[in-house]
Amino acid sequence: MRIDIITVLPELLESPFGASILKRAIDKGLVAIGLHNLRDYATSRYKQVDDYAFGGGAGMVMMPEPLDRCLEDLTSKCTYDEIIYMTPDGETLNQSMANRLSLSKNLLIICGHYKGIDQRIRDLWVTREISIGDYVLSGGELGAAVLCDAIIRLIPGVLNDETSALTDTFQDNLLAPPVYTRPREFKGKHVPEVLLSGNFKKIEAWREEQALLRTRQRRPDLLQDPPPAKSD
Amino acid sequence: MRIDIITVLPELLESPFGASILKRAIDKGLVAIGLHNLRDYATSRYKQVDDYAFGGGAGMVMMPEPLDRCLEDLTSKCTYDEIIYMTPDGETLNQSMANRLSLSKNLLIICGHYKGIDQRIRDLWVTREISIGDYVLSGGELGAAVLCDAIIRLIPGVLNDETSALTDTFQDNLLAPPVYTRPREFKGKHVPEVLLSGNFKKIEAWREEQALLRTRQRRPDLLQDPPPAKSD
Repeated sequence: MRIDIITVLPELLESPFGASILKRAIDKGLVAIGLHNLRDYATSRYKQVDDYAFGGGAGMVMMPEPLDRCLEDLTSKCTYDEIIYMTPDGETLNQSMANRLSLSKNLLIICGHYKGIDQRIRDLWVTREISIGDYVLSGGELGAAVLCDAIIRLIPGVLNDETSALTDTFQDNLLAPPVYTRPREFKGKHVPEVLLSGNFKKIEAWREEQALLRTRQRRPDLLQDPPPAKSD
Repeated sequence: MRIDIITVLPELLESPFGASILKRAIDKGLVAIGLHNLRDYATSRYKQVDDYAFGGGAGMVMMPEPLDRCLEDLTSKCTYDEIIYMTPDGETLNQSMANRLSLSKNLLIICGHYKGIDQRIRDLWVTREISIGDYVLSGGELGAAVLCDAIIRLIPGVLNDETSALTDTFQDNLLAPPVYTRPREFKGKHVPEVLLSGNFKKIEAWREEQALLRTRQRRPDLLQDPPPAKSD
């Protein structure tokens, strides 16, 4: 998989892609990440990429020309499954969307900043708008890093133990059950007896029960509304 | 505000806190970030911080002792408003939660990894469990960065123009209206006439209408279910 990211702050993304699982996936050749500095596509002497909003009001808007030039350049070299714009008013990322996107060949992600990008770039270029949640961030970079992490860890071979991702929270629309490791007793608190029993059938039943219990208590919405199957 | 973060991957968090608005907030002295490497609190020779899960199954669990030692150390030096554990089964972060947390004095954030932390640490120490969305990430670090960004940009003085955050998407439970900047015409697409009119009453009315329209189309749930007022 190839993921290209357009940003005014490539330096912000260095360490998320330089550590842990994302770095390992890149080192293994399972994914290639291209960071593209939008300022390299600015036309003005001062490398300007933002300007005042028409109609007034606080906050700057990212200009259409530099983005358009960058998009023309990147799409002339590569065919993308999706051109994604990270924005709080986009479709909310969830695990099934991450599962589907992990099957892509090439993705292009635009990170917004300030008040966002000029609407015309959204109309002309963007095929998918994604939000990582109902909150506002300083820019799209952390959202892009989150999206990449959620996707990349699902690519076969990235996680050491492939079954690990399949037992994650959300993969079966349930929260994960509690987990315990050594020591058996810690500060007067004991590991549940069943987990020490060696009876895997019982352990599995306890975990399912706990997962259901936790989901009922914390996220009853996951049980009530199975997300509709989507074809995209 | 002070935010301490416990992590096995402090290097992953370097560039998010070393760039843009978070860096500016730190440089201005509006927020102090402490990154604490959990391995410094490991007791074994090999700086082990994770172990196999009781009951078997894929994925490692973060051991209770190193976390407990780290938490004892940090809480002996500082009183925290909340001890937060980043976990996909936590309460889902939204803008009103970010607003409330931005009023905190000191926060402590635990980043999980692998299959998560031993349940007993959650029972003994954690006062709040937060998820940034319904998807699984490689670790809690990106979630912590997202939470910090969402909170820190709300601290007065962090954004250049304070009104900028107040007109963001979600602050009034509506998505933001489309934004435009120069040029007036781009690739045959024109900026809506009203935004060029100079009539601020009309512009305001258009923006409200567009915000409502976009919210109805994309996120009708925001209009149907005003989140209940919370006292915490």
